[in-house]
Order: sequence, then structure tokens, then C-alpha cells
Amino acid sequence: MASLKSWVTIRENHHFSIANLPFGIIHSKYDASHRPAVAIGDLVLDLKAFSSHKGFSALPSLDISVFSQTSLNAFAALGRRVHGEVRSYLQDILSESTTHPDVLKDNEELKKAVLLPKHETKTHLPMAIGDFTDFFAGKNHAFNVGTMFRGPANALQPNYTHLPVGYHGRSSSIVNSGTPVRRPNGQIVLDPAADPKIPFFGPSRKLDFELELGAFLCTGNTLGDPIRIADAEEHIFGYVLMNDWSARDIQTWEYIPLGPFNAKNFATTISPWVVLAGALEPYKTHGIPNTNQLFPYLKETDSYTAFDIKLSVELTTAEESTSLISQTNAKWLLWSFPQMLAHHSAGGCAMRTGDLLGSGTISGEGEKELGSMLEMSQGGNREIWLRGMEVRRWLLDGDTVTLSGYAGEDEARVGFGECVGRVESAVIF
Amino acid sequence: MASLKSWVTIRENHHFSIANLPFGIIHSKYDASHRPAVAIGDLVLDLKAFSSHKGFSALPSLDISVFSQTSLNAFAALGRRVHGEVRSYLQDILSESTTHPDVLKDNEELKKAVLLPKHETKTHLPMAIGDFTDFFAGKNHAFNVGTMFRGPANALQPNYTHLPVGYHGRSSSIVNSGTPVRRPNGQIVLDPAADPKIPFFGPSRKLDFELELGAFLCTGNTLGDPIRIADAEEHIFGYVLMNDWSARDIQTWEYIPLGPFNAKNFATTISPWVVLAGALEPYKTHGIPNTNQLFPYLKETDSYTAFDIKLSVELTTAEESTSLISQTNAKWLLWSFPQMLAHHSAGGCAMRTGDLLGSGTISGEGEKELGSMLEMSQGGNREIWLRGMEVRRWLLDGDTVTLSGYAGEDEARVGFGECVGRVESAVIF
Repeated sequence: MASLKSWVTIRENHHFSIANLPFGIIHSKYDASHRPAVAIGDLVLDLKAFSSHKGFSALPSLDISVFSQTSLNAFAALGRRVHGEVRSYLQDILSESTTHPDVLKDNEELKKAVLLPKHETKTHLPMAIGDFTDFFAGKNHAFNVGTMFRGPANALQPNYTHLPVGYHGRSSSIVNSGTPVRRPNGQIVLDPAADPKIPFFGPSRKLDFELELGAFLCTGNTLGDPIRIADAEEHIFGYVLMNDWSARDIQTWEYIPLGPFNAKNFATTISPWVVLAGALEPYKTHGIPNTNQLFPYLKETDSYTAFDIKLSVELTTAEESTSLISQTNAKWLLWSFPQMLAHHSAGGCAMRTGDLLGSGTISGEGEKELGSMLEMSQGGNREIWLRGMEVRRWLLDGDTVTLSGYAGEDEARVGFGECVGRVESAVIF
Repeated sequence: MASLKSWVTIRENHHFSIANLPFGIIHSKYDASHRPAVAIGDLVLDLKAFSSHKGFSALPSLDISVFSQTSLNAFAALGRRVHGEVRSYLQDILSESTTHPDVLKDNEELKKAVLLPKHETKTHLPMAIGDFTDFFAGKNHAFNVGTMFRGPANALQPNYTHLPVGYHGRSSSIVNSGTPVRRPNGQIVLDPAADPKIPFFGPSRKLDFELELGAFLCTGNTLGDPIRIADAEEHIFGYVLMNDWSARDIQTWEYIPLGPFNAKNFATTISPWVVLAGALEPYKTHGIPNTNQLFPYLKETDSYTAFDIKLSVELTTAEESTSLISQTNAKWLLWSFPQMLAHHSAGGCAMRTGDLLGSGTISGEGEKELGSMLEMSQGGNREIWLRGMEVRRWLLDGDTVTLSGYAGEDEARVGFGECVGRVESAVIF
């Protein structure tokens, strides 16, 4: 793809280049309604205003009522072909060499009405989320955590390479980047070796983040009618960064036999801008190879099923000292999102527009490439060194975790922006 | 409470007595719109029509727009006090000794417009369900299943009596009674003792039902702000029967370490009529006593926290031979719904109008009081005898499972009607 250049001034390596054009939901200083928008550089294109000013008249078959909704669900439900057409059209409109200069480039009045400075807008959750499922496809993470409990020989459970392990999460607790996260109270056993185990009830002492990639679905399936692996990609609308906050001490006590519950359901933060699947297409790469013989329902014809997305995690203390604590890549997944989707629906489970799938924690192979403090501190057994004299084993009140990620370079950079959350102190019972 | 008598002809021991008045969503032969209704005997009172004909003019502060919605969520969100007022008013309107005979009893024209024969209506899911959580509060069930795997001494996991164990379920797969249920395909290990374990992919051979009680929430909480145990009851709108269909063989292979997933998410059937919490109030009773010292956030002042609801399970074969295979009682729960709710939100998880909580499988103490075939057949190791010469270990294609339940007697019976599902053969991959 030849590099596009926009007439919008965009600084070098900006996440929101013209090659990206991620979709989100905003409100602005002078219009409190929640509505779809596209980010470009430090501006956002208000799609409700743009469509009401006949900005999409070159796409006469497009149902522009989707841009008057308070979530992206209606737009997503139009399907991948339409997302591609709309994104291509907007790339044209916004490019220096646009074939429709009259629509926006040379229309100063419309520019003022529909191109808003980002700092005069606020983002909201981009989708109305039906169900949220979190997978465990980060093999290095699964191996690291399994090693802590069972040693390296038995680190991965027997099912791990046969199917994408996942669990149903909680959609009501998914929050937009920037929302404060309260440290949860819960039942905690301080001495897991004691018999009988004696829990206490109080604030989690092992609060952690998890670096994940999330996929939003654009279209679903009828209950009982599985999504086939060959079609699965077409059901994916786009991607966001996700911090699946975790209370490790609550998890240890509660999760047998039915899995994580209160250890996870107090908050999950996502980045506000959905990077469309089409925008990430050029950055497809190999995931972690699975040497297992897969069942046909999980077998992909293409081996480029992961994304080369550079990911980073920063921790900012209450004193506003920021440390880069991890740099990794979204390619470190054993299972692709189409495989997750094919597995999820194999028994007939209904998937719906707006459903969210999480990858599971993404860790690379090195010590500086870990996606959770559980791994960095070896279960709290060693210190994570921050800038200055600060150390952590787990998150403290006042800590801010910032996830960031991008693919590509310069004018073709496709980035997610940031996924941010600050830890607040627990409720007093 | 003195027994009310209705001017509607209701046969003896009907589930939908005037003491009940459960709420649901219907459409009818001559009006395809989905809308709220109340069941009384073999009639349903169309609340949309009734309210538009000024049936609620005696309740001037009631927002009757809630009866023009396609789910009960808006009505539920009005809160317990309003549900009580509306139900009391409808009991008055429908009673022989009504103080408002002009509204309906003596108004033949309105009766024709708003009281519909049940067989000319169809029910739909009563609520738009946000999140679904399934608990594991049936202690006898947990003990029976645990005994199969670990023997009676270690049957219950250490956390079991400390907190209501639960997991996040899948809301997209919740279906109304009568919806066919497709046998799921999935990965299954035939010989769990083999090393390495070798899965195959195909239709579940261990398809089971689970007899549960479900609670719908009327109001929720803000993320980060737990629901206190003293307030929890006020967040419960009403109850339904629930069949949490389970594929035991898929579950065994997939559930470590993150819990049940495809073994459960292919279908969950609920009964269509929501029995309001107020209607069950007279039938509160002791649950299973918990001798554990509970944390204050789980401690209830009242010990009458379960319901004396007689439950039954019938299995009808493809040849239409019906066997009663279980009779038990909803009181066999270690944890109450308010306790589940207080625990669920203790870490700050947001609960919302329309969320559904399942009790977990309810089994009594005797062999004829079991809530799953897993228990009846001892994990498939013995035959469950049906009428005629039929036997089962697990469900066969064509089998219909019918759950039923009621409290009280005669003119004060408060019943759920039925929760029915028929097993269809698996999709061929």
C-alpha cells in the first residue's frame, strides 16, 4: 500500500494516522450527545455532524442513521465490507490528493463543524457490550504462571494446546480508559499452606494489571449454528487494548472449581478507539506456532493470524514518576481471534454484535516483556524496580497503569492510543 | 394473608392464582408487538392494552410507558415498592371483592380487549439480560458431585462454606421455555486416565440438565460501590425456573483452570413468567444452615432466606412417554440470593437491571430428589429408570426436560408454570 498523506497536520509517528482512522464514541464541549467519530491526528471527525451535512453523499447506499447512535454497534452490524468502504472513503476525503476536495478539504465551514480538537471532546465506551469472554491465549504468560504453581514440566495444562481456553467475563464492569479503578475487597487466605485455610475479608494486597488485546465482534450467529473457522475473521469488527485488572489473592481462594470471579469482575479497562480489522491487515504476522495437530474446526489456512503490534506498559506512581515496565508484542499468542471465535461458537453459543473477546495476558519471551506483575515479581517474590528508588511487587493506591500499542511507522502508523487506569483505595466496609 | 378469590375462573391449584400474578412478555394472535403482561389462570392480562385504556388511572404516579416496552426491564427498574403497588392493585382489580369493579370486572368490552386466552398468546424472554451469573449454592449437589471426584471427606472445596462460589455465564444463550436445544459439539476425552489425554471432537455424549432457580435484578449499583447485605433483597425483582443445560464430557476437559465454558454456553432455558419477589414472600423458609462463622458482609439478620418451592423434573422421551424423575425443593440452598448479590458486588462489580443470577443445581437429600442426571446416574455409572422399559444415563436426542415448581396451595398457589426444552441432534461438522 502506497503511503497516504493527509491534509490534516499530523505529527510524525502519531497513532492516529490516515492509515488508521479508528472509530469511537465521543461527546464534545458544545454537544453533549454521545455519537460516533473517527480519530485523525489530534482531531476527531464527528461522524454524526459529517453525515448530517451530507458528507457521505458519495456513498448513497450507506445507512447513515448508524452515525446517530450512542454506540458503534449499528455501524459494526453493517459488516466488514461496509466498514472497509467507509474507511476507504474517509481516507480519500482526508488525503492530500483527495478525489473529493469539495467535501471537506476545501470546505472551511464544514471543517469547523465536524473536525473537533481532541481536547474539546471526551470519549466513551465505543460499543454496547453484550457478553465479554476472556481467553488465555498468551502462551508465555500461561507458561510463566503455570511454572510458578507446578514447575516448568507441567506448566501448561493438558488442554492448553488443544483448544483456546477461556472464561466468561463480566460486561457490566468494562470501563473506558481513564475511569478510576477501585481496589476490590474480597476474601483472602494469607497462608495457603495452612489447614484448614482461614480467609480474611479486606482490600486485595495483590492487585495486578493484565496487558491484553481485545476484539469486538461486528456480526454474530444464530444460537445452535457455529461460526466456521473460514468465516470467523469476517465477524471481527476491530481491536482495542485491554487491561484485565486482577486481584491475585482473591483469585487464589475463589477460583476452584469454577474459575475467576470477583478477582476479575471489579473492572476491565479498554482503550476508547476501535482500530478496524482492515487497518491492521498489513501488520498480520505469525503467532506462536502450535505444533499440536488441530481439529479441523480450529485449522486456519493462513498462518499469518497474529498482529505485529508493539505493546508497552508504563507505571506512574502517585508522585507522578513514570517507569516503562514492559515492552512486548501482540504476536505472542498461541491462538488467533478467529480460532477463539470458532471454538467459542463450536457448541452453538450465540455471538452478537458488540461482544468482546480478550486475548489473555500477552507476555514475550524476555524478562522485560511480561504482561503482568504476577510474572514480573514472580508471584510477589521479588521487587520490580521503578525509576528513582521506588519498587513494587503489586500495585499501590495512586498507581496509574498505561497500556499503549501501535503497528507500523511514520505516516502509516496504526496505533491504539492509550488504555489508562489509576488505582483508588478500597471501599471501607 | 386472607385468601383472595378472583372473578376470573381459575381451576384449583393453578400456578397462576390471584396470589401470584407473575409478569412476562407476550405477543398475541392479533398484535405481534412484544409487550408486558400478567398471567392469571388460563388468561393473560395485556398490560400495554390495559394501561392504554386507562386501567392504571387509580395509580396516577405510575409511569405507564414501562408497559409499552419489549422487556420488563423498565418496569423492574421502578423498584420493589412500585412492583408491590402494581401487583396489589391488579390483585384488587381481579378479585371478586374488587374496590374498582368498573375498571375491569364489570367492563365487558375492556375484558375482551385486555384479557387474552393464554393459547392465543406466545411468551418471550421476559427481560433484556445484561450479565448472567451462575452460582453453586446447592450444597447437596456440590457434595454429591464432589464425592464422585474426591470422596465424601473432601467433597466440598475449602472455600465452599466461606463464600457463594459462582462463575460468569453467557447471557446470549439464555432462551425462553420451549426453545429447542441443540446438542453441542465439543472436545471430549474418552479416557481421562490416559497420558497424554487424547481428545476427539464431536457431539457431547453426556448431555445433562440442571434444575435451578433464577433471580432477576430490578436495580443495580454503581461500579465500585458494593450492595450491602441489608439492602440486597431490595434489588431482586423476581424469580424464574432455570435449566442450565450442561455437557459433562466437554466440561471435564475444558474447565481447568478457568471454569466451565462451552459445556454451559450452548443454552440455558428459563421459564417465561417472572414470579415477583413479593409473591414469594409468604413462602420464605430456612435454607441449609451454614455452621461457618460468616464475614459481616454475608451475614443476614433473618434466617428465613430460602423459599419453600416444590420443584419437579419430568423427562419425556421421543415416544412421548413421560417420567417424573425428581421431586425436590428450592430450600436446599446453602446461600441465599441476597448473599450471592452481596458477595458478587463486594469487590465493586456493577449489577444492572435485568441481570440474572442462577442458584446452582438444587438437589434434596434423597435419591429421588436430585437436580441433575450426573447425580442420578452417578456420573453415568448406573441407569436411571423411566416408565416402560426405557432407561437413561444422559439425555438422548428427542428427550424433553420439563421443570416445574410452585409454592402454596389452592387459591393461593404461587407457581412458575413450566420450563421446557427438547434436545435436538448436534450440528454435523
